[in-house]
Amino acid sequence: MLTIDPHQIPTAKLHSYLLGAVTPRPICFASTVDIEGNVNLSPFSFFNVFSAKPPIMVFSPARRVRDNTTKHTLENVQQVAEVVVNIVSYDMVQQMSLASAEYDKGVNEFVKAGFTEVPSDLVKPPRVKESPVQFECKVNEVIALGEEGGAGHLVICEVVRLHIKEDILDATGVIDPALIDTVARMGGNWYTRSRSGIFEVPKPVRTLGVGIDALPEVIRSSKIFSGNDLGMLANVQSLPAGSEKIDQLEEEDQLKAREALKMGDVPTAWSILTKNIN
Amino acid sequence: MLTIDPHQIPTAKLHSYLLGAVTPRPICFASTVDIEGNVNLSPFSFFNVFSAKPPIMVFSPARRVRDNTTKHTLENVQQVAEVVVNIVSYDMVQQMSLASAEYDKGVNEFVKAGFTEVPSDLVKPPRVKESPVQFECKVNEVIALGEEGGAGHLVICEVVRLHIKEDILDATGVIDPALIDTVARMGGNWYTRSRSGIFEVPKPVRTLGVGIDALPEVIRSSKIFSGNDLGMLANVQSLPAGSEKIDQLEEEDQLKAREALKMGDVPTAWSILTKNIN
Repeated sequence: MLTIDPHQIPTAKLHSYLLGAVTPRPICFASTVDIEGNVNLSPFSFFNVFSAKPPIMVFSPARRVRDNTTKHTLENVQQVAEVVVNIVSYDMVQQMSLASAEYDKGVNEFVKAGFTEVPSDLVKPPRVKESPVQFECKVNEVIALGEEGGAGHLVICEVVRLHIKEDILDATGVIDPALIDTVARMGGNWYTRSRSGIFEVPKPVRTLGVGIDALPEVIRSSKIFSGNDLGMLANVQSLPAGSEKIDQLEEEDQLKAREALKMGDVPTAWSILTKNIN
Repeated sequence: MLTIDPHQIPTAKLHSYLLGAVTPRPICFASTVDIEGNVNLSPFSFFNVFSAKPPIMVFSPARRVRDNTTKHTLENVQQVAEVVVNIVSYDMVQQMSLASAEYDKGVNEFVKAGFTEVPSDLVKPPRVKESPVQFECKVNEVIALGEEGGAGHLVICEVVRLHIKEDILDATGVIDPALIDTVARMGGNWYTRSRSGIFEVPKPVRTLGVGIDALPEVIRSSKIFSGNDLGMLANVQSLPAGSEKIDQLEEEDQLKAREALKMGDVPTAWSILTKNIN
């Protein structure tokens, strides 16, 4: 047995143990706005439901271990005390991972990650149309847990409205665990899909994906690629040379590229899509 | 899309939606003591880590939706502000489910569920020896979220010591998501195993299992039955007639009973084990 005094190890190491042990962690895909109405969308796995009456959820945007900076989501809920908690299903995971990158203040991750904004009924931040369950919430309180890098903030949210896609309900009207098909965070780059288990989403922390909005129109509007396929293609630091010239694609090549993406092989997918260009 | 005002539906229905949507929820298997030192062990899925520096976890013992009573764990942390958060691996799940039943005040669920107490270094509640990671915590604060049935309590815990089984670490000393093999809660009776997906643990809420301490010694000490097998055999309202007379068992019958348990068929397992009695 490894016995550890948390004060005697670096924060990054302690962080790794905490994130490796407390698993799987559900994901809050939080939509917020700043005082000027700029939208932010970012995922958090320090999250859960804690009460049914009143219906309370808590998530924590933590100060970065790396440089003690805070996240735009935290700044936003301190300006406008509202949030939409969107639940993340497997078919959203690659786009969600794209939205987790640290884009500059003012960048709308709905656009970068290719999600669709839907107006909320009672709060300012929009909902994520693709999400199977969306909780409109008022933020009752934000409790800072510390001042140093790694310090979390308890954002205590009260649900004021729920939106549930009917196709995740079973015949009795109860949410079916297989149909909602949630994903959750494990340690490192690992996720788990509730209905089938562990998978990896590689994501170099300091790299920003170009975003779905930067993909050539013919790829973005393809009927062959799923949201996860597009999310993977958009999660590159820069588009391959010549990709801006792609204006048509054979169906066969799209199918081959999709196969490569299924294997997690983004470079091969891109080389198939750009083969007629250079 | 089903759009719901949380104030317009019964709490039990809202509870079901919240638990069906916010998934998978990690499990805090909380060990606490009352002022007299009586030990309690109970699982909570309103739980997560929220901060690395300071290392903060939060779990919520909620007032029961059914009758607005509180849980012994809550009473204990209000008397002795300490808890051990034990992480639950797949091979512990049936015994853990047994410990989730509402045994009377003063009943030690370590005994009922067949877990082993290990003294903690810095806090009074014991650790669960079988758990792959054990967090000794001081309780900084308890925040009541409401007064009615369904109201949660944020039990804000600071980790003061970690214990990690070395066999869940990979070659670089990081917790391996497959080796820790955690389970988590979905809605209803559903769980998910991080590495392989959804499974069910049927548990009538108001039934108390007889407990592992009530099983015949020859079954309890069998080398053939796992902890999960014993947990299933002990999760019956009463032992089958004549079971107290079981003093020896053929290996072949134990293997057959184990096969039945693998299929979730507890009645058949018991009828194999008692076939020579009546």
